[in-house]
Amino acid sequence: MDAGRAHEPYVRVAEIDIDPAQVESYKAAAREEIEASVRLEPGVLALYAVSDKDDPAHVTVFEIYADLNAYTAHLETPHFRKYKAATQDMVMSLKLRDTIPIVLGAKAT
Amino acid sequence: MDAGRAHEPYVRVAEIDIDPAQVESYKAAAREEIEASVRLEPGVLALYAVSDKDDPAHVTVFEIYADLNAYTAHLETPHFRKYKAATQDMVMSLKLRDTIPIVLGAKAT
Repeated sequence: MDAGRAHEPYVRVAEIDIDPAQVESYKAAAREEIEASVRLEPGVLALYAVSDKDDPAHVTVFEIYADLNAYTAHLETPHFRKYKAATQDMVMSLKLRDTIPIVLGAKAT
Repeated sequence: MDAGRAHEPYVRVAEIDIDPAQVESYKAAAREEIEASVRLEPGVLALYAVSDKDDPAHVTVFEIYADLNAYTAHLETPHFRKYKAATQDMVMSLKLRDTIPIVLGAKAT
C-alpha cells in the first residue's frame, strides 16, 4: 500500500506477553478476531500478529488502519470486545505504541 | 495476504534506535531502500517502517518475506548494501527478532 500524505494510515504496534500456559488459546482468539476485523471493517487495512521464535509467549501485532477513526470504530466492534473479554486472563502485559509511518512498502497483490 | 501452511512467509521485526540528530537522514535512506526492495525483489512482500510518536528516534520495521531464501537474497542486494553503509553511523542500536506468524490479516487490494 502506498500512503498518500492526504490520507496517511494510522499505525500502531502492540507488544503483548501471554501467560505461557495459554499461548495456544490466545492464538486461536487472535486469529478469530483478526479474520473478522479484516473481513468486516473497511478501515482495518492489516493486522499482522506474530510470536517471537525465541519466546513464543511474546506476541507483536502490527496494526494498520485507514485512519484514526477506523481505529476507534474497531474498538467498539462485537468481535473486538469478544476478543478482549476472552483474552483478559491470558494477557500478562500489553504495551501499545502509536507510530508515524516512514514508509509502508508492500507488493500490490 | 493469506499465509498457506505450505509456504508461510518469513517475518522479522527490527527495532532500531537512531542518532536523534540524524533521524531525517535515516528516514530518507530507509525510504529509498524499501522502495527499491519492494520494486525489485519478488520475495520482498512488505517492509513497513514506522517511528514511535513519543520517540521519533525509535524505529520499528516489520518485514515480510516470501520465505527465508528471499530474506537471505535481500541481504546481498546492492540497494540493501548501500543502505547499510549509508546508515551505519546513524544506527545506535539494532535488535532483530525472528518470528512465527500467528495470522497475517490484510485487505486484498
